[in-house]
Amino acid sequence: MPDYPINDPLHSALFTDLYELTMGQAYDAEPMAASAVFELFYRKMPSTRRYIMAAGLEDVLNYLEAFSVTESDIEYLAEQKLFTKKYLDQLRGLRFTGDVFAVPEGTLVFPNEPLIQVVAPIGLAQIVETFVLNQIHFQSVAAAKAARIVRAAEGRMVVDFGSRRAHGVDAALKVARVSYLAGAAGTSLVLAGKRYGIPIFGTMAHSYIQAHDDETEAFRQFATIHPQTTLLVDTYDTLEGVRKVIDLSRRMGADFQVRAIRLDSGDLADLARSARTMLDESGLGDVRIFASSGLDEYEIQELVRRGAPIDAFGVGTSLAVSDDAPALDMAYKLVEYAGRPRMKLSMKKVLYPGRKQFFRETASGKMVRDTLARADESLPGEPQLIPVMRGGERVCENCASLAEAREHARRELDRLPDQYHRLERDGDAYPVAISEGLARDLDSIRNSLERSTARAAADRVR
Amino acid sequence: MPDYPINDPLHSALFTDLYELTMGQAYDAEPMAASAVFELFYRKMPSTRRYIMAAGLEDVLNYLEAFSVTESDIEYLAEQKLFTKKYLDQLRGLRFTGDVFAVPEGTLVFPNEPLIQVVAPIGLAQIVETFVLNQIHFQSVAAAKAARIVRAAEGRMVVDFGSRRAHGVDAALKVARVSYLAGAAGTSLVLAGKRYGIPIFGTMAHSYIQAHDDETEAFRQFATIHPQTTLLVDTYDTLEGVRKVIDLSRRMGADFQVRAIRLDSGDLADLARSARTMLDESGLGDVRIFASSGLDEYEIQELVRRGAPIDAFGVGTSLAVSDDAPALDMAYKLVEYAGRPRMKLSMKKVLYPGRKQFFRETASGKMVRDTLARADESLPGEPQLIPVMRGGERVCENCASLAEAREHARRELDRLPDQYHRLERDGDAYPVAISEGLARDLDSIRNSLERSTARAAADRVR
Repeated sequence: MPDYPINDPLHSALFTDLYELTMGQAYDAEPMAASAVFELFYRKMPSTRRYIMAAGLEDVLNYLEAFSVTESDIEYLAEQKLFTKKYLDQLRGLRFTGDVFAVPEGTLVFPNEPLIQVVAPIGLAQIVETFVLNQIHFQSVAAAKAARIVRAAEGRMVVDFGSRRAHGVDAALKVARVSYLAGAAGTSLVLAGKRYGIPIFGTMAHSYIQAHDDETEAFRQFATIHPQTTLLVDTYDTLEGVRKVIDLSRRMGADFQVRAIRLDSGDLADLARSARTMLDESGLGDVRIFASSGLDEYEIQELVRRGAPIDAFGVGTSLAVSDDAPALDMAYKLVEYAGRPRMKLSMKKVLYPGRKQFFRETASGKMVRDTLARADESLPGEPQLIPVMRGGERVCENCASLAEAREHARRELDRLPDQYHRLERDGDAYPVAISEGLARDLDSIRNSLERSTARAAADRVR
Repeated sequence: MPDYPINDPLHSALFTDLYELTMGQAYDAEPMAASAVFELFYRKMPSTRRYIMAAGLEDVLNYLEAFSVTESDIEYLAEQKLFTKKYLDQLRGLRFTGDVFAVPEGTLVFPNEPLIQVVAPIGLAQIVETFVLNQIHFQSVAAAKAARIVRAAEGRMVVDFGSRRAHGVDAALKVARVSYLAGAAGTSLVLAGKRYGIPIFGTMAHSYIQAHDDETEAFRQFATIHPQTTLLVDTYDTLEGVRKVIDLSRRMGADFQVRAIRLDSGDLADLARSARTMLDESGLGDVRIFASSGLDEYEIQELVRRGAPIDAFGVGTSLAVSDDAPALDMAYKLVEYAGRPRMKLSMKKVLYPGRKQFFRETASGKMVRDTLARADESLPGEPQLIPVMRGGERVCENCASLAEAREHARRELDRLPDQYHRLERDGDAYPVAISEGLARDLDSIRNSLERSTARAAADRVR
């Protein structure tokens, strides 16, 4: 028995755009039931980014494994007066029976590289589009954001504090998960800790201090109940708050086990330096300094460059909403149907036709180049798409745990050359070549489509 | 029995930041159990916005009504080695027993105005912070985004197409809901239609055309199975696609009932004009033109200004992620504890102390000014915060249906003066005055906090 609720949007077959179902009915009626290949990729790197980190596969596989249309779904669809009884009956028994190829979570991906490839009867492959895109798109954007933030911290601990500003409850959970995937130490969101087994962190809020008539008394109470805690010192006057912590350490003596103070406003570098000096001079060299306050990767980089003695960062909004690039031009496109490559002609967008693979070459432990190729080509480097589902069932020798995916992400980030880690806008793009085979296919199908469009226009003129 | 699943994050008491629980344990131990007032508001208007539209209350009330900590939650918390048995026992029986005051969904709100006021024992009011912020913040930002888009369309239909790019499944559902609240005609997301009873819309995807060997044949098949449909004409060559639709209308005769064509690339104004002319000249004056293609409120405004003959807009990414302003500086702050007003002193941020109300004045059917006041003041204009929950139970004479909230939103947008509807950056701010009573309280508590900080510093010097 599945342990998820039947109306959970993470497991609802109706988490789909209406046109997926109207197309499904058309395919069913014509009938067109041959196998299709859809690939999910993004077209253009946002100007602030040099890479995206694949994430969300786990949710997609869970969804596909459990895919089914409930009776109440059928009733709702019937009320729309759009669907035939025949198609509704077909939906009633529908399960996901396709194959899925994907890059493992934590893999760095560049424009035009497929993150996921779904191979299934066309109507079925189409229905799952909305969910697949919804999960992979956001999680991959957010994972890369988290990786940038972790990198900027240069080894200092980063904790996700973004749950309150993430776009809904699903986003909050996924931000916590992909932050950990990308190297963060953990999250403040308790439910994410429970669900994903990732470490949870917490300090205290201003409200706790405000509710007490006296700041020192608030510190004393909290440090008594939670000895190894972090005390928030900036409610009224930051350095005065630090002095109160020092006073408290004298009064409590050996009972004082406070691990850190938290700064949440003002010039964090200056305040951290002053606080560090005050703590050190008072024999509190072991008390760490935790900083938060609308931080992003740019501010963290600047604090690190300025040598601010900050030991850990809590990052909220910018991480939770991926503020520099909240969305990518990511698409789930038909590239093959009934064994023939497919494409669309569009003014500015190129869609590489046919089922693909891509290869990653490294030298001296660093990534050198990727090559996007036909699925049947074998090129230098490591093929990136691996089978993760066959006939609707997970290929579990390839199922990575979150801990394994995190280790894979770390290796990927390590082997990415430094220039692609820089935070500057419009930096160099990591090179993605197109194989000769794929270039030939693109030319050939483009020519044939253009010829047929020209022929149709000519026919009309006659 | 609740009809929601116990592990649904929309109903999990662990959808909370860890510090809410560590503070809760401290309050429980001290003990501090007096009533607190928390207010949720935002501090600063994003430069692109002139208003925010309150939304998300329905989810908050559902959450508070159902609030409870499960046995598996308790087990997880016990494993963290942070909590006493006494506190865990207290959590086990915890229900939300507080009062809630709020502005109805659809109300326009400006900086510093409370959207929600939670009155409850301090530890309890604190635990629900993360969820309340998570839902109200995103839904209110997204509702205002949708309102801008709907307004830019000047009466033309707007449909939410954003599910695939929204940040997770919860965001996709909420974007659909608040788009409808703000005046959109509906959504493409089937599950949102089922859950909220809002109209669903769908056309067809490029993949459908690509999967067929011939575009005209694809149109014919789809229009046969779904007679009153919308045909997507830009897969290969937009105007050639329009010609094929016209040919099809001749071939099908009376069976041709296609309602619209969809343009999804290129210069939409030029293409719409050419398509309109072609359709009209072929006796297809009733076939509407639907446009999509990375649209936002600015592009829609421009298309409308250019007189593009577009009848409806599908809006995806920009709406789904609220791209001009994906987050607000929204906070849930303690303003009163045990009957005394509270505040914090911070370098740049003002927090108005004490429990508040705000009043909206209108003249000739248009909004003139709001005044933020003490809760016990009675000022000209209409008080905006109303009771929505008493002792943990909804005050249902105030429960608005989505349809009623949508009507309220329409009235709010109608009575907002035109200058605040303009899309230009850094326009005039709608005036929010501070009552004399509130200004006096702010001065008085600020002076007393500054005096006590100065006194502490002086004591130290002695």
